[in-house]
Amino acid sequence: MLEIKDKNAFKHVFQVRVRTWEVDFLGIVHNSNYLRFMEIGRLEYRRNYGYELSPTKKTTDGLKVFVAHNSIDYLSTAAFDDLLNIYTRVAWIKNSSFCFEHIIEKDSDKSILAKGMGIIVNVDYKTNRPADLPDKFVNEIMEFETDCKLMR
Amino acid sequence: MLEIKDKNAFKHVFQVRVRTWEVDFLGIVHNSNYLRFMEIGRLEYRRNYGYELSPTKKTTDGLKVFVAHNSIDYLSTAAFDDLLNIYTRVAWIKNSSFCFEHIIEKDSDKSILAKGMGIIVNVDYKTNRPADLPDKFVNEIMEFETDCKLMR
Amino acid sequence: MLEIKDKNAFKHVFQVRVRTWEVDFLGIVHNSNYLRFMEIGRLEYRRNYGYELSPTKKTTDGLKVFVAHNSIDYLSTAAFDDLLNIYTRVAWIKNSSFCFEHIIEKDSDKSILAKGMGIIVNVDYKTNRPADLPDKFVNEIMEFETDCKLMR
Amino acid sequence: MLEIKDKNAFKHVFQVRVRTWEVDFLGIVHNSNYLRFMEIGRLEYRRNYGYELSPTKKTTDGLKVFVAHNSIDYLSTAAFDDLLNIYTRVAWIKNSSFCFEHIIEKDSDKSILAKGMGIIVNVDYKTNRPADLPDKFVNEIMEFETDCKLMR
Repeated sequence: MLEIKDKNAFKHVFQVRVRTWEVDFLGIVHNSNYLRFMEIGRLEYRRNYGYELSPTKKTTDGLKVFVAHNSIDYLSTAAFDDLLNIYTRVAWIKNSSFCFEHIIEKDSDKSILAKGMGIIVNVDYKTNRPADLPDKFVNEIMEFETDCKLMR
Repeated sequence: MLEIKDKNAFKHVFQVRVRTWEVDFLGIVHNSNYLRFMEIGRLEYRRNYGYELSPTKKTTDGLKVFVAHNSIDYLSTAAFDDLLNIYTRVAWIKNSSFCFEHIIEKDSDKSILAKGMGIIVNVDYKTNRPADLPDKFVNEIMEFETDCKLMR
Repeated sequence: MLEIKDKNAFKHVFQVRVRTWEVDFLGIVHNSNYLRFMEIGRLEYRRNYGYELSPTKKTTDGLKVFVAHNSIDYLSTAAFDDLLNIYTRVAWIKNSSFCFEHIIEKDSDKSILAKGMGIIVNVDYKTNRPADLPDKFVNEIMEFETDCKLMR
Repeated sequence: MLEIKDKNAFKHVFQVRVRTWEVDFLGIVHNSNYLRFMEIGRLEYRRNYGYELSPTKKTTDGLKVFVAHNSIDYLSTAAFDDLLNIYTRVAWIKNSSFCFEHIIEKDSDKSILAKGMGIIVNVDYKTNRPADLPDKFVNEIMEFETDCKLMR
């Protein structure tokens, strides 16, 4: 089991509704879609700092990122039309990479459906090689988060 | 109901298998996925002429296309793990656009699941404005198809 | 081109945001995803009447529906992170079927991205054969819509 | 980094082609789709033993399974139309759960795109509580695999 902090360590939450094409023949959300919910959490977390994310408007946080790792524990199931709360936090920051943690819960009964994490690597726009995270980005997260480990 | 030719007017067929995430809670393929099956048919139809389709290798048929229209009649349902036959033909060709027709059938009992069509527009690589289809492309299709209307 | 009413004939609108996995390598929303946006419009339109849609809570509008037809004209393109407005109305109602019309616009510049329609058939829960639409359902729509043709 | 065996420990491989809607605006396969490729590997691995998987025909391996965990390391990127080889093996078997390991490589240059694993739990058809894996299932895998740990 992944070691993910309790819900009260998370300061960012975003809500999504399960759609018809996201469940399978058992009527439950397909395991792959949780990675999409986690990504919605990550994008909205970054938007939360006031950034534009649309590539046509240029991503204004100065990052070009790749996902290096994802892990997820599935604890319960969600059905079509359920409202889900996606909790997102940054657990640690290294020189060019950082770690998102997530809790996904069903809004109706607050049951925990999944716990997950992902490692994101910042890269140079041209070479696609790992590049140091901008200080502004690091500082903003360290200020926002209550329990984020800085390892640089 | 769309007026789609009989199955024997189609000379190209490609097989796909229904996956878990493509069905809904009724256990049947979600209506949006038929557009994806139709696109698989269209891509494999073009590959059939010997073209490379990967953008990293440059699409060698000289086309940059947008989908202008899609229509689909749903006649029966498919379930997880069903094998589907995607029939694809070009029904007509104009100066810068052409029309794909499709029949999608369940392989096991040859029941027709859907009939669909789509209109594709060729555009200039830079301006994205409609551009005449290359003669080579038109000639190859007119030679391959038995009943394709040329309207240019 | 589909004959879809002007935007001011639509009384229901719902907003969705384009996510990373919904665009293709050209950076534009894949054609199949518009059917999903249309379905979000349809579901939220039905929810608007106060119905529960979740199958675990039993769909309280008394319908079991299949999609019989979808058509869509693609007029412009949307990119990752764009906010879209999904306009939905019921254009006509027959004994067991009815027709949804949609306009999808980009919120930022109000450009129309797509116009679409779909025909929905109500079926008997057990036999899956077409069944008359409940009077309650028909009356509610006829009261809500300003220009819906009743053909029963 | 996940500890996944070398490619030569894998006896099952299945090929998939990357489709238009599976890549994002960078032109690379979206991270969530690797879980779908891994599931294709798992399904075809099970089919390999001669089982029917379609629920309408009853899954003949006697299992009802849930995914309890997924992990994936992303090592390189794949583009639209790339052919991918999905390697799948069972790494260990416990009383009611077992572990799939995967390597995903690009067919053209045999570069490794991702390494992943997932834990599957067998449950009782009615109660959905963990249930012992059938002996037949365990024996078949132990016979097929060269390096699968039995922990029951």
